[in-house]
Amino acid sequence: MLLLIPGPVTTRPEVRAAMAQDYAPWDPSFRPLDRGIRARVLKLSGGADATHAALPLQGCGHFAIEAAIRSLIPPGGKILIPMTGSYAARMARLAREAGRAVTELPASPVLPVDPGAVAAALAADAGLGHVGLVYSETSSGVVHDPQAICRVVRAAGRKMLLDAVSAFGALPLDLSQHPEIEATAFTANKCLEGLPGLAFVVVRAEAVLAGRGWAGSWSFDLCDILEHAQRDGGCRFTPPAQVMAALRTALDFHDAEGGQPARLARYTENARTLYDGLTRIGLTPYLARDVQGPIVTNIHAPADPAWSLSGFVEALKARGFLISNFYNTERPSFRVGCIGAVTPDDFVRFVGAVESALLAMGVRERGAG
Amino acid sequence: MLLLIPGPVTTRPEVRAAMAQDYAPWDPSFRPLDRGIRARVLKLSGGADATHAALPLQGCGHFAIEAAIRSLIPPGGKILIPMTGSYAARMARLAREAGRAVTELPASPVLPVDPGAVAAALAADAGLGHVGLVYSETSSGVVHDPQAICRVVRAAGRKMLLDAVSAFGALPLDLSQHPEIEATAFTANKCLEGLPGLAFVVVRAEAVLAGRGWAGSWSFDLCDILEHAQRDGGCRFTPPAQVMAALRTALDFHDAEGGQPARLARYTENARTLYDGLTRIGLTPYLARDVQGPIVTNIHAPADPAWSLSGFVEALKARGFLISNFYNTERPSFRVGCIGAVTPDDFVRFVGAVESALLAMGVRERGAG
Repeated sequence: MLLLIPGPVTTRPEVRAAMAQDYAPWDPSFRPLDRGIRARVLKLSGGADATHAALPLQGCGHFAIEAAIRSLIPPGGKILIPMTGSYAARMARLAREAGRAVTELPASPVLPVDPGAVAAALAADAGLGHVGLVYSETSSGVVHDPQAICRVVRAAGRKMLLDAVSAFGALPLDLSQHPEIEATAFTANKCLEGLPGLAFVVVRAEAVLAGRGWAGSWSFDLCDILEHAQRDGGCRFTPPAQVMAALRTALDFHDAEGGQPARLARYTENARTLYDGLTRIGLTPYLARDVQGPIVTNIHAPADPAWSLSGFVEALKARGFLISNFYNTERPSFRVGCIGAVTPDDFVRFVGAVESALLAMGVRERGAG
Repeated sequence: MLLLIPGPVTTRPEVRAAMAQDYAPWDPSFRPLDRGIRARVLKLSGGADATHAALPLQGCGHFAIEAAIRSLIPPGGKILIPMTGSYAARMARLAREAGRAVTELPASPVLPVDPGAVAAALAADAGLGHVGLVYSETSSGVVHDPQAICRVVRAAGRKMLLDAVSAFGALPLDLSQHPEIEATAFTANKCLEGLPGLAFVVVRAEAVLAGRGWAGSWSFDLCDILEHAQRDGGCRFTPPAQVMAALRTALDFHDAEGGQPARLARYTENARTLYDGLTRIGLTPYLARDVQGPIVTNIHAPADPAWSLSGFVEALKARGFLISNFYNTERPSFRVGCIGAVTPDDFVRFVGAVESALLAMGVRERGAG
């Protein structure tokens, strides 16, 4: 069964096999593994040892985003969040419940965020210290443009928190060029093709240290995590050691494939094969081709009354493919993840499985419902 | 290599093998696994569906304890914590940084907490709404007596938060008899013999619902997690699906062994074999026999100048056993975990390895340093 969901993704058997061992996370024998994945993740981010640190955090991507918000925005501070979709809404909720003020910037669910609108909002409110951007909005499939948004954030003398959960390892990022990005949050189980249970925040060390005492949560205090790492070199609290071992193997495959550009090229070809194939059999992608990102693709639910999402999901499962059984778009859709250890050939076969499933369901009118 | 550390513990190969698969946590096919482990963990706690819920939380035990504190103690509320050792100190820090007031009750590091002292402290301060107790204090090896403490907490009309991280699954617990216990926190990777990356809080549902809005953290809001579970049946945010699958297998072994009493009997026999064996070869356990718990055993560092903890740890590793390379006691010691998929026979062999390691190191004077 291939998982074509935007995470947890299909992984390689070698990556999962790395978990078949017991590990003692505080033993010196584990330290090279721990240090190794931090250093490799930092390098992938474009951050440098002198300025940045890759901080691992037990748990999921939401935890990493909450930790970044708590540790870099002072209590009562204010963040501007372009409302690109579900994950922007989640960032806003994490910030509000942590006692930070949020200004929601209306944004299109089907277009990249307009840098001019961000600039105008920042100009209108000197209290906005940060902008929170979702790089790849999983709910829509739109990949936003951190470079363009960073330019206006930097020009306005503000800082950026980047949700790179569905982006890191595949979409370009070079923190050395972006001193305004104070934190970049992501997990092991999306474009890095590791397993779920481990998140990271790559931070600008000076920004985190300047926020000592802000977090209001020991668990999510990136300043304490950074100082512990500097002092001890290891994790605070029990880490998911097997998931870390799996990530090491996953990073080996990332390197062997040719790093971020090669991974992006494969995902782009996956997404193109999917987009073209489904269009050819009469389905209607949700996004215009020029804004469709390579991470996740939404397709309009067919108009035919024989359509049902749950029936379609089960029919695909019987054909060896698992997709999401819900949708996050305004109008009914189904969604397909293009990331993970899957290839364009898998998507050729997937398009065949979709056609077969629709025929079996009796879905004739395939245009948008 | 056997891990004789108080977690992550040595696990069975079958438990680790359960992680060799990709899982889609939101697919209906995953739900029986998710619901199954919640139901089994709830049953193990003695809680009932009508009154309690077993809430999974991504991450480590500290996160579960912070979530319990935030969700059950109102902001600014006050908790009494008997200072039994490092893990009590950690609970106190988690509470303080979350903005709750902590009254530290001095306690012996080598004796169970005195219920009379708890009763007196509660009588002296009506503002103390909760008591936070560490059931099995990993730093000392002392197993405390929640029943005795619960009696005085209940008599005083207060509530209890129980850190059962090093206890759950092996030490007795019956929440049906303890309405004053509002939350019990633990993880998959200690006495349940699963892998790290997944924590639980078993809560009294009415207490959590009464605290809606208190958490000040969406990630750690047990009320939201409970309501989500009631509505949807699944996890909020991406769970460590492989670790959950491993826990299912670990719970199968827990059942097959004979449940909590059988697990406690094995660990007790592990600890007895260790205590007797090390005493016989001239080493001095840190605790008196009658207060030594079955989870972790500290042993005084030998007085001999040839002793070094790191040298000893490496010598044991060469003999197939991994122990902690640090100690948490006041005086120098080494510590050995008696939990995990290990048997009394392993401890017979371990005692032999200790003797061989001490001989090789030239440690002749084995009494307390």
